[in-house]
Amino acid sequence: MSNKLTHEEQEALVISDDPEHPANLISELCREFYKLGWVTGTGGGISIRQGEHVYLAPSGVQKERIKPEHIFVLPFAQSSVPKPGSKRDFLRIPSKKGLSESQCTPLFWNAFSMRGAGACIHTHSQHAVMLTLLHPRDAQSFKISHQEMIKGVRIGGVGKTLSFFNTLEIPIIDNTAVEEDLTESMAAAMDKYPDAPAILVRRHGVYVWGNTWEQAKTQGECLDYLFEIAVKMLLAKLPLVEDN
Amino acid sequence: MSNKLTHEEQEALVISDDPEHPANLISELCREFYKLGWVTGTGGGISIRQGEHVYLAPSGVQKERIKPEHIFVLPFAQSSVPKPGSKRDFLRIPSKKGLSESQCTPLFWNAFSMRGAGACIHTHSQHAVMLTLLHPRDAQSFKISHQEMIKGVRIGGVGKTLSFFNTLEIPIIDNTAVEEDLTESMAAAMDKYPDAPAILVRRHGVYVWGNTWEQAKTQGECLDYLFEIAVKMLLAKLPLVEDN
Amino acid sequence: MSNKLTHEEQEALVISDDPEHPANLISELCREFYKLGWVTGTGGGISIRQGEHVYLAPSGVQKERIKPEHIFVLPFAQSSVPKPGSKRDFLRIPSKKGLSESQCTPLFWNAFSMRGAGACIHTHSQHAVMLTLLHPRDAQSFKISHQEMIKGVRIGGVGKTLSFFNTLEIPIIDNTAVEEDLTESMAAAMDKYPDAPAILVRRHGVYVWGNTWEQAKTQGECLDYLFEIAVKMLLAKLPLVEDN
Amino acid sequence: MSNKLTHEEQEALVISDDPEHPANLISELCREFYKLGWVTGTGGGISIRQGEHVYLAPSGVQKERIKPEHIFVLPFAQSSVPKPGSKRDFLRIPSKKGLSESQCTPLFWNAFSMRGAGACIHTHSQHAVMLTLLHPRDAQSFKISHQEMIKGVRIGGVGKTLSFFNTLEIPIIDNTAVEEDLTESMAAAMDKYPDAPAILVRRHGVYVWGNTWEQAKTQGECLDYLFEIAVKMLLAKLPLVEDN
Repeated sequence: MSNKLTHEEQEALVISDDPEHPANLISELCREFYKLGWVTGTGGGISIRQGEHVYLAPSGVQKERIKPEHIFVLPFAQSSVPKPGSKRDFLRIPSKKGLSESQCTPLFWNAFSMRGAGACIHTHSQHAVMLTLLHPRDAQSFKISHQEMIKGVRIGGVGKTLSFFNTLEIPIIDNTAVEEDLTESMAAAMDKYPDAPAILVRRHGVYVWGNTWEQAKTQGECLDYLFEIAVKMLLAKLPLVEDN
Repeated sequence: MSNKLTHEEQEALVISDDPEHPANLISELCREFYKLGWVTGTGGGISIRQGEHVYLAPSGVQKERIKPEHIFVLPFAQSSVPKPGSKRDFLRIPSKKGLSESQCTPLFWNAFSMRGAGACIHTHSQHAVMLTLLHPRDAQSFKISHQEMIKGVRIGGVGKTLSFFNTLEIPIIDNTAVEEDLTESMAAAMDKYPDAPAILVRRHGVYVWGNTWEQAKTQGECLDYLFEIAVKMLLAKLPLVEDN
Repeated sequence: MSNKLTHEEQEALVISDDPEHPANLISELCREFYKLGWVTGTGGGISIRQGEHVYLAPSGVQKERIKPEHIFVLPFAQSSVPKPGSKRDFLRIPSKKGLSESQCTPLFWNAFSMRGAGACIHTHSQHAVMLTLLHPRDAQSFKISHQEMIKGVRIGGVGKTLSFFNTLEIPIIDNTAVEEDLTESMAAAMDKYPDAPAILVRRHGVYVWGNTWEQAKTQGECLDYLFEIAVKMLLAKLPLVEDN
Repeated sequence: MSNKLTHEEQEALVISDDPEHPANLISELCREFYKLGWVTGTGGGISIRQGEHVYLAPSGVQKERIKPEHIFVLPFAQSSVPKPGSKRDFLRIPSKKGLSESQCTPLFWNAFSMRGAGACIHTHSQHAVMLTLLHPRDAQSFKISHQEMIKGVRIGGVGKTLSFFNTLEIPIIDNTAVEEDLTESMAAAMDKYPDAPAILVRRHGVYVWGNTWEQAKTQGECLDYLFEIAVKMLLAKLPLVEDN
């Protein structure tokens, strides 16, 4: 760790009266996501990149009880792109004992570096998981069309919004024993599906991103809505994709 | 835009200590509707007409985070009835950059001008969408009878309340790529079904109105309840309409 | 109306700093019941009897927005037991224009006079309504056994609590066009099923009571839980009643 | 009862400004659990052991309305391990009339004494109950594999966390008429399944514990998530356990 900031400089990175400061937003949004069933049991979370700083929640803690002083801050420009088990550069490590940065760190970095995202959300939403369970085991992606909520989703998560007549496609990758080990397969899926606004992880959840935290959140809501209605449609034996 | 008000006069249109002021109500009700799952992912909203003023939320923003200062105010008496792409007259445009008035504007106007409504709500409720999905593709309307909650719904949305022994009928129209393009088919359905208190939009949601915001909201709740129970009944193969 | 109290005496009946005052409780509990989906769209409510006073919410208003000053107060000792269309004696009528007492008044009185209840709750819970819909049209009652939550329910709603090995039975009566017209059939069902803690109304909801508001509320929760799980069991083709 | 503390000493055991004091936590967590549907209708609750003190909620009260002054405090070192009907030693009994300690007391003690747990939660979650109902009547346990949320669960509730590739197994015991009478069969199941982090009770709910209240709560959430998704999977005829 190449941290050269004083304690005061480190605290200044996360303590702010501005409710829109990333450290305040992460705390507030995690409480909201908990109510949505996205981050129950310490799972899931959100990371925000603001300019050259990346704000991260700790790993394995109750997400609805995070406080700004628990937030890690990393320089976006790392000595090396975060990989499973790699060393990371930090600007701030919380002083509370026993906290380590989110295990999703290299996955969030995929969104930041490959898509230029400003925020990335990871949820364990049951709608996402049930959707993967209702697909064949070797399904490579989920497709849905002709839903108004598709219009809230952007090409690649950061481009133009889709049209009602576009078919939304989201890749599904297999889960791994260690969360960080999803890094490569997530990156490969992002390469193969450049227009996809999210990555579904079988029996696990979803990663979704956007240019800003607002776009990441609203796309997360649109996608979760689509996952939920797709599950209902599959159980009712309704086709997910229609001809135009 | 024929706006001749000073900045102070414009602000006075939306800043008020009265919780029942339309700008405060729209902000509060959108938070409530978010909890109900009606306006997730920036979708849906509510417009209130008070005398000669119409209050509108912005388009494409998080509805649960709207503040009174984000509200547009339009004269109800427009140079021409709002149509897709038409120019609108404004009394107030929020100073926050990048906001435009709700894409539902001409649809809300249908309720104001054709029914004399004082408020119109648009939701993306999954109950409404699933209900349209469980109907045949060419179904023209949804019908239900013998439900206590029917008694909370008014003839045409603004007349006398229905009886337990009345059959409620709500037209279903097809969705379009651009929300404004629903204007004509919604108006045509309102003409054809003068007693209908709402318009369902296939794979999209519902428009519901009332004489006042209270009536629009309570009818929205009664209808959403009926959509939800109708979905459950269809999945359980129970008939929606009974003989008296 | 035989109201002889001054305006100040009337206000003193509902304005209190005590959160356990019936006028405060009704307002608070209706907000809670709204979150539970029991009183959406102005439906449902609660009445509390405290000694010789009965506290009632108004009819046809948003139950989650009731304030103490909207509460009606009636003497429990009426000139004649409330019946559909009968005149009632009041101690306090809210000054807000257009309010009338709950249409459930004579139904609440059934619980007060026939069971000595101290509170009665009426809900439009979808679990209650779906349960009646999943029963045959001529079913006279709902029965369930071997559920821990049965232990939270009292014989006749006001006696000893049931055991895990007791079968709970709740009569189902048919709905009527006017809510007050349920008065007689509810009373007849209470006579025929003296141990029943509640009355289900087909395609409408449930009436449940208790010695106190706490017992009415907790029994309402236990019963709503049982209605919900019974619906799930019926849809999964599981029997509701087991042999001991 | 061998209580030798003064009234002031007793009050000091539960009155604290620290939100992390067990008496404050139990009150707050019960409100949270109520929102999750875990402790509706007075059912369920949580007990916290801190060093030599055990904090218990009262029996048969609305769990979402518990206040710190309603909490019982017992020495963990009892004259004899709590059994059904046995006498208990108390450090503090609430002065409010009519309160008795939770009927789950000897069951919570199983977790404290057999696993060294620091907290034990009991819920009536419908997901737990439906899961037991969807198992054959003589099923001894519930098994699930290949779910990310399994990773939030610890071996025996207090050891190392499980891996994605581990199969989670939780015993199911039969319910009894009196809650305390579950004490022996719960202990027997804990003996037979030393790795199990919880005990399911057929037609009743679940007991789950952890080293701390945080671990008990987050494991309770992970397990409730798994119960919920297992119910959905069983209804969709998906297998709960996969080969590696």
